[in-house]
Amino acid sequence: MNEELAQNAPAWVRVREALEGFARRSPSRFAVLIFAAMILVFTAIFAAPFSGANNTPTALADALFTAVSTICVSGLSTVDMATHWSPLGNAFVFIGTQIGAIGVLTLASVLGAIISGGLGLRAKLMIASDTNPLRLHAGPVPEGQAIKLGDVGGLVVSVAVSLFAIETVIAILMMPSVMAAGYPVGESIWYSFYYAASAFTNTGFTPNIGGLAIFQGDFWFLSLIMIAVMLGSFGFPVLYALRRHLFHPRKWSLHVKLTLTTWWLLWAGGILAFLIVSPIGSTAFRAFDAGQRIFEAAFLSTMARSGGFNIVDISQLDTATLLLTDMLMFIGGGSASTAGGIKVTTFAILLLAAVAEARGRSSIEVFRRRVPSDVLRLGVSVVLWGATTVALGTLILSNITDAPLEYILFDVISGFATVGMSTGVTASLPDSGVYVMAAIMFMGRVGTVTLAAALAASQVGQFFNHPEERPIVG
Amino acid sequence: MNEELAQNAPAWVRVREALEGFARRSPSRFAVLIFAAMILVFTAIFAAPFSGANNTPTALADALFTAVSTICVSGLSTVDMATHWSPLGNAFVFIGTQIGAIGVLTLASVLGAIISGGLGLRAKLMIASDTNPLRLHAGPVPEGQAIKLGDVGGLVVSVAVSLFAIETVIAILMMPSVMAAGYPVGESIWYSFYYAASAFTNTGFTPNIGGLAIFQGDFWFLSLIMIAVMLGSFGFPVLYALRRHLFHPRKWSLHVKLTLTTWWLLWAGGILAFLIVSPIGSTAFRAFDAGQRIFEAAFLSTMARSGGFNIVDISQLDTATLLLTDMLMFIGGGSASTAGGIKVTTFAILLLAAVAEARGRSSIEVFRRRVPSDVLRLGVSVVLWGATTVALGTLILSNITDAPLEYILFDVISGFATVGMSTGVTASLPDSGVYVMAAIMFMGRVGTVTLAAALAASQVGQFFNHPEERPIVG
Ligand SMILES: [K+]
Ligand SMILES: [K+]
Repeated sequence: MNEELAQNAPAWVRVREALEGFARRSPSRFAVLIFAAMILVFTAIFAAPFSGANNTPTALADALFTAVSTICVSGLSTVDMATHWSPLGNAFVFIGTQIGAIGVLTLASVLGAIISGGLGLRAKLMIASDTNPLRLHAGPVPEGQAIKLGDVGGLVVSVAVSLFAIETVIAILMMPSVMAAGYPVGESIWYSFYYAASAFTNTGFTPNIGGLAIFQGDFWFLSLIMIAVMLGSFGFPVLYALRRHLFHPRKWSLHVKLTLTTWWLLWAGGILAFLIVSPIGSTAFRAFDAGQRIFEAAFLSTMARSGGFNIVDISQLDTATLLLTDMLMFIGGGSASTAGGIKVTTFAILLLAAVAEARGRSSIEVFRRRVPSDVLRLGVSVVLWGATTVALGTLILSNITDAPLEYILFDVISGFATVGMSTGVTASLPDSGVYVMAAIMFMGRVGTVTLAAALAASQVGQFFNHPEERPIVG
Repeated sequence: MNEELAQNAPAWVRVREALEGFARRSPSRFAVLIFAAMILVFTAIFAAPFSGANNTPTALADALFTAVSTICVSGLSTVDMATHWSPLGNAFVFIGTQIGAIGVLTLASVLGAIISGGLGLRAKLMIASDTNPLRLHAGPVPEGQAIKLGDVGGLVVSVAVSLFAIETVIAILMMPSVMAAGYPVGESIWYSFYYAASAFTNTGFTPNIGGLAIFQGDFWFLSLIMIAVMLGSFGFPVLYALRRHLFHPRKWSLHVKLTLTTWWLLWAGGILAFLIVSPIGSTAFRAFDAGQRIFEAAFLSTMARSGGFNIVDISQLDTATLLLTDMLMFIGGGSASTAGGIKVTTFAILLLAAVAEARGRSSIEVFRRRVPSDVLRLGVSVVLWGATTVALGTLILSNITDAPLEYILFDVISGFATVGMSTGVTASLPDSGVYVMAAIMFMGRVGTVTLAAALAASQVGQFFNHPEERPIVG
């Protein structure tokens, strides 16, 4: 569109053009802005009297925190989510998590697609999990090359349809359990959809008074929660590949193989570690019989991925169990998923780098593929971002609250990785701490995704004129 | 030496030959073995009655711990170092730290030299900090290529002479302060040399009853301690470069520039952070006037590098100050130094990788030099090793002791990075915990150094037959 045309175009076209320009120049910053704007809108909504029970307005700190927690699908809360909100407020929470989840999935997929090659955006996304030989040779491209708001629109629809379809299936499967718990039909439908959405989007909010404890012995319901969280935390590219080639692992891309392998190894490793470590120090774990212990270990290991539901009271767990959960939460789920953390592929790449180093290989290799060395550098950047966020957050909160360090660290990592399990520290924070925690969630959710994309997308060509020299490390 | 000659050679030649063969095949494993053997010898010595005050034998756990702490120049203790040992036992502690320091310096330098190029070992060491154009193009070489025990002998002498020379100068400068504290001449000489050695080797043991508290107001003495710790934590290659080209920074190698820059930035950053954070939560810090605060912040920032002396009671510091110290300790000092941690260059390389990523550069650049990408991989391996050691150590000790997490974490990192400051947790551990702590110190000291070398040295040539593919991270 040339200068003169832009002058004469209607206002909405010019706004759209300006947005497209900004999005093209810097999609990462554009994404951060969109997220910030959504959070402000929902802060206003949650602060308004019509969102509160009994038409009461909500304090700014709590409204902002709930908006961040909802849009970032974090699931931490400073108010009692079951009683604090009016039915309308509850509906906004539900809508917020859906918008947040679709936003995050779209954003991560778009930015991930920009990273993964130089093809058109929609095409790239559709083949992101496919066996396209072009993908093997794709390198990073300049930010501006491939993104258009129109393409994103198509992707949003595609993500949203998948999301609602999966959530509806899960909700229908959950319905009998919710009705069996004694809720009337209307509430049962609402609760089922809320739980299905809360689980698949890895949010972790519970709509009913008493929360998940009501379903303590209902293994069908709890297993559905686990499966929904799992599917959500795999990420869109993996789900897409599974839908097309579920029984043909040879057709999976490296990303799909690496995500699923690491996911399951961490999951099983987590269960094993909980079974070994937790009964030593945790009276809550010791009280269980063998079957309950295994189920609880599996549940905790799943929820640490970023689901955030909990059966046992987190504050009743011993320090060793909390630290184990911290590690799992920090790693988080799959890239381009609603799960948080540094992501399982990032963790895998770091480990594979160490393995390559130990085997004396000059490049990272896995599943008969060579991983370019700039992927490691991207991974290191993401981990440094995460470690810095967690360290600063813990440092600041340790000055704000007198809670034990293991509790503070747990809630900070839970916030950073948008997990949502809490030792109770978050709910007891003064306003200053609530703002800090909201910032941690925002940096964890929007930060890692856009950071990875912004960095990967900013590769520029350059000539080398510096000689190589090798410092000693370690 | 051919088969027949070997058959007819005297026994010592054959032993020497066998050792040379093992050292040549796997210098890293050889080094681990040497360290373990030294620790066993010193465990026997410390357990024996003649080492204990009043001719009392020392319990195995404490003897082993002291041997590890001495040989690894860690400085943590499970007994009162000033009163538990006989004069002979004290002399063995002194000798142990000297052997440990020379051993670590030699080991790190030898292994570092193996990493840094394919020249003859002695030649390599002598030019390690020099402006040799060959160094710029040197790549990793196979382990077996360059090492001979004879060469190492020459290096040990060179390291030992430097060490004793520097320690003697510091001891002489310390003498007036120690005499002014009221000790008789004989004890003053002994204490001066002990303090000088303890500081330069970054051990952190104090020989006198009351320890450093006796010298609380003596800024001359405390400054000498700081300077000695600083020099020791720079590392041998840096000291060598400074001796030759102190006022010609243009002649410094990349390693020297990177070490000194990172060292001073971390030092200044640490001081600033302590001055901002510590007065908020720490009554000990609040009680100081401005001058004392700055001095204490500088002292703590220096000792975190791995010196391990302390003026204020560590258990009186608030959680935020402990966490800040944790971070500084984990990073530690220079490569090929008596300091521990992952090393300042490792930290710098990780940061530079993130910076390169953010600037869209395809390789890590600093001081007009390009750093090969395998250095980053080595750094990632060292950090993973460190993080795993600290995480496992903290997890296990949290099951053994009821101490608060911030205290356990502090002592574990202090052990891993062989710093030696303690919140009191180490001295109060049961035997099982003492063994765990000893293992942490061993893994921290011998592990990082040999791991880095073993990995860097094991590069093997290989052909690539796998296509490249790019997973999504972050
Ligand atoms: K969550
Ligand atoms: K030390």
